[in-house]
Amino acid sequence: MKVKILVTLKTGVLDPQGKAIQQTLNGMGFNNLKEVRQGKYFDIEINENNESKAKSIAEDMCKKLLANLVIEDFKII
Amino acid sequence: MKVKILVTLKTGVLDPQGKAIQQTLNGMGFNNLKEVRQGKYFDIEINENNESKAKSIAEDMCKKLLANLVIEDFKII
Repeated sequence: MKVKILVTLKTGVLDPQGKAIQQTLNGMGFNNLKEVRQGKYFDIEINENNESKAKSIAEDMCKKLLANLVIEDFKII
Repeated sequence: MKVKILVTLKTGVLDPQGKAIQQTLNGMGFNNLKEVRQGKYFDIEINENNESKAKSIAEDMCKKLLANLVIEDFKII
């Protein structure tokens, strides 16, 4: 089954990439933006039909590789 | 209001970054993965309380900057 994972910077962690995107959008005329934050998205197909097992594998992958838990949060959607 | 945007590679477009992640996960013992694809995620706060207006601004931003429509799809969630 397919698992979708979002990895985002924790609140309070500076996001220079998001700031750069926001400034660019601003320069393009989108001047009603309050904040832009960028994260990562993973679309993973696991050979496992049991949903809770697949999610637990995904969680394990996030903790071990996909997310840096010091500065990032992850969400399995 | 907050708008969440997912930008993913279109089906069929090669994703070397996803492949690299898959190989790494494989080497770490996660050997039941069929496919890994990476995308981008944007969390944007717009000074606009009307949901449909905010979504239309988000769509406009995707078309003009955030997504490369030749090889990427976007989804406002």
